Amino acid sequence: METLLLDSEDVASYAEMDRLIDAVEAAFAAYERGDVRMPAKSYIDLPQYEGDFRSMPAYLDVGDWDAAGVKWVNVHTRNPSEYGLPTVMGTMIYSEPETAFPRAIMDGTELTMNRTGAAAAVATDHLAIEDARSLGIVGAGVQAYTQLEAIATIRPIEEVVVSDIDEDRVGRFVEAFEDRFAVREGTPAEAAACDVCSTVTPVEEPIVTREMVGDRTHINAMGADAAGKHEIADEVLLDAKLVIDDFEQCTHSGEINVPWSAGILDADDVYGEIGEIVTGKKPGRTPEDGLSVFDSTGLAIQDVAAAHVVYEAADANGAGYAFDLLGLAGRFET
Amino acid sequence: METLLLDSEDVASYAEMDRLIDAVEAAFAAYERGDVRMPAKSYIDLPQYEGDFRSMPAYLDVGDWDAAGVKWVNVHTRNPSEYGLPTVMGTMIYSEPETAFPRAIMDGTELTMNRTGAAAAVATDHLAIEDARSLGIVGAGVQAYTQLEAIATIRPIEEVVVSDIDEDRVGRFVEAFEDRFAVREGTPAEAAACDVCSTVTPVEEPIVTREMVGDRTHINAMGADAAGKHEIADEVLLDAKLVIDDFEQCTHSGEINVPWSAGILDADDVYGEIGEIVTGKKPGRTPEDGLSVFDSTGLAIQDVAAAHVVYEAADANGAGYAFDLLGLAGRFET
Repeated sequence: METLLLDSEDVASYAEMDRLIDAVEAAFAAYERGDVRMPAKSYIDLPQYEGDFRSMPAYLDVGDWDAAGVKWVNVHTRNPSEYGLPTVMGTMIYSEPETAFPRAIMDGTELTMNRTGAAAAVATDHLAIEDARSLGIVGAGVQAYTQLEAIATIRPIEEVVVSDIDEDRVGRFVEAFEDRFAVREGTPAEAAACDVCSTVTPVEEPIVTREMVGDRTHINAMGADAAGKHEIADEVLLDAKLVIDDFEQCTHSGEINVPWSAGILDADDVYGEIGEIVTGKKPGRTPEDGLSVFDSTGLAIQDVAAAHVVYEAADANGAGYAFDLLGLAGRFET
Repeated sequence: METLLLDSEDVASYAEMDRLIDAVEAAFAAYERGDVRMPAKSYIDLPQYEGDFRSMPAYLDVGDWDAAGVKWVNVHTRNPSEYGLPTVMGTMIYSEPETAFPRAIMDGTELTMNRTGAAAAVATDHLAIEDARSLGIVGAGVQAYTQLEAIATIRPIEEVVVSDIDEDRVGRFVEAFEDRFAVREGTPAEAAACDVCSTVTPVEEPIVTREMVGDRTHINAMGADAAGKHEIADEVLLDAKLVIDDFEQCTHSGEINVPWSAGILDADDVYGEIGEIVTGKKPGRTPEDGLSVFDSTGLAIQDVAAAHVVYEAADANGAGYAFDLLGLAGRFET
C-alpha cells in the first residue's frame, strides 16, 4: 500500500469546484447532524518568529462516504518580505477512517484556498439572490481567486469588481479573469454594492461600512481568522441575516469576534449556523430578506471534505506520486 | 524549496540511537525549562472502527536548535486481523519553526518506536544502576526492539530475557538479537528480576507483581497509553522511586492512571517528572534507592526531537526523496 503525494498543481487540478461545493455543503450538514469529530484547533504561537502553527484534525461521515485527516498550517507574517515564502503554508494528511492508512499527503495551501471558496459558494447559494450577476471582492490576494471561481459555479456572475490597495495585485487578478468575466478595479463601496461581495482581507478596522452595502447584498466575510480582525462594520452585521460557520470559532476569531467581545453583538443577533441552513432546519434567504452576511472562519471538516474530493479524483486519474512512506508495500497486503 | 520524504527505511537508518537519546533528553529538559509549546493531544475516537486518531503538535527549543512538527497517529485494534495492517501507523510532518516550511514528511511509525526507545534509555540512564548488565523485556512486539537497542546504548547490557505469550514473537525477537546479546525467552518474573526491565504490553491487569521485581531493578513502564491500561502492580509503583514523563498525560492514560483514579496513588507518591531529573533539579538514582519506575506516555516533543535528528542526518547524507509538495520550487527562492 502506498501513499499518494499530491503537489499544489495536482490539488489545483483535482479540486473540481462543483464537487468541492457539494462536499463542503455535505460537511456542514454532517456537522449539524453531529456526524463529525472535530477537536478544537490547536495553536502553537511563536512570537519570536511572528508566526504560529495550527493543527486541524477532523473526521466526518456524510452518509455516502466518510473521511479523516489533519491539516498542519501556519501564519508567519514575515515570510514574504524576509524569506520569499508565502505567509500561509499548509500540509494535509488524508487518512482512511476504517484503517487509518494515510491515503494521501497533499499541498494544504492550495487546498485551503479551494475549500474556502467552496464554503463561500455554499453560503452564497443559500443566502444570495437567485439571479446574482455581480460579485465584488475586497482584497485581491490568493484567496480572492477561488471566491470568484466558486461563486461563479453557483450563480450567473457576469460582472466582477475587485478592490485592493495594491495595484499589482488588482492587475494580476483582472488579467487572470478578464477572458471570462467583465472584471474591473473598483472601490470597496463599488464592491460592496454588488449582489454578492466577498471580503478577503486581514484588516482590523472595518473596510465595508453600512452605507456602502446594497439593499439585498449577500456578504461573505472570509478574512477574519484571529481575535481582533474585523472587516465589516458592526451596523452591517447587526442589520443582516447573520450566519456563522461555528459558534466557538466565530466568537473567538471570526468576523463577529470584535463586536462580540465588546458586547455590541450577542447570540440573538446571530441567525444561525450554516449547517442549520443547509439541512433546511432554518430557511436561507427569503423574499423579505435584505442584507445577509456569512462569517466564515474555516473548519477542519472543510479541509477533510476537500481532501476527499481531491484524492478520489486524483486517484481515479492516476495522478500524483505513489510513495511507500510506511514501508507496507509487500510487507502487508489488503 | 522541496520537502524531503523519508520512508520507514530512511527513518530506521537515520534514527541514530545515540543522537536520538541526546535529543530526547534535551527535549525533556526544554519541557522542564518551559521552552516548549505542546498543546494537549487531540483524540478522534471512532468506536465503529475500534480505532482512534491522535494529533500531536509541538515546538521545542533546546538551545542549540529548535524544531516544530505534528505527528498524526492512530490505534486501530482490528487492523492486523482484518486488514493485514499494523495497529499503529504514524505520519510525521517536520517543519522549520522560523518559516513553517515543511522540511520533511516521514514515517511516524518507525519514528515512534525509536523515540520511545530513546525515552526509556534517558530514564534508564538516570535511574538504573550504573553497571546494569541484564535487561528484561515483557512483550515482544514492535516496541520491544528499540527498547533493547536504546538501553544497550547507555548500559553494558549482555543478558536479555524476553517474555511474551506469543511464541512466534519471542522467536523473532531472539533471532534478531542473538548475534549481539545472550538473549533468551523467560517468564515475566525472570524479566522483572533483571537490572533493568521494560514492559511494552497493552494489558489492563498488571503482569509484573511486587515479588517478581529485583531489589534494585529499574522498570520502564512503556505500554500504557490509554485509561484503564496497567502493567505494573500498584505495590511496585508505591514502593518505587516513581518518575513520570508528564503529569497530565500519566494521570490520564499512563501506567499510574488506574491507581490514580482509584485513589490508591496520589501526587505524594510521584517522585518527579523526567525533566526534573535530566535538568538536575532532582537527583536520579542514589545509593539508597531500591526500585525505580519510569511511567512513559510519550510526548509530542519526543517525536519532534526525533524527527529533527532523522531529518538532519538524512539530509546530510542525501537520503530521501525531495518533492515539491507546495509548488515553491522556482516560484520562491531563499
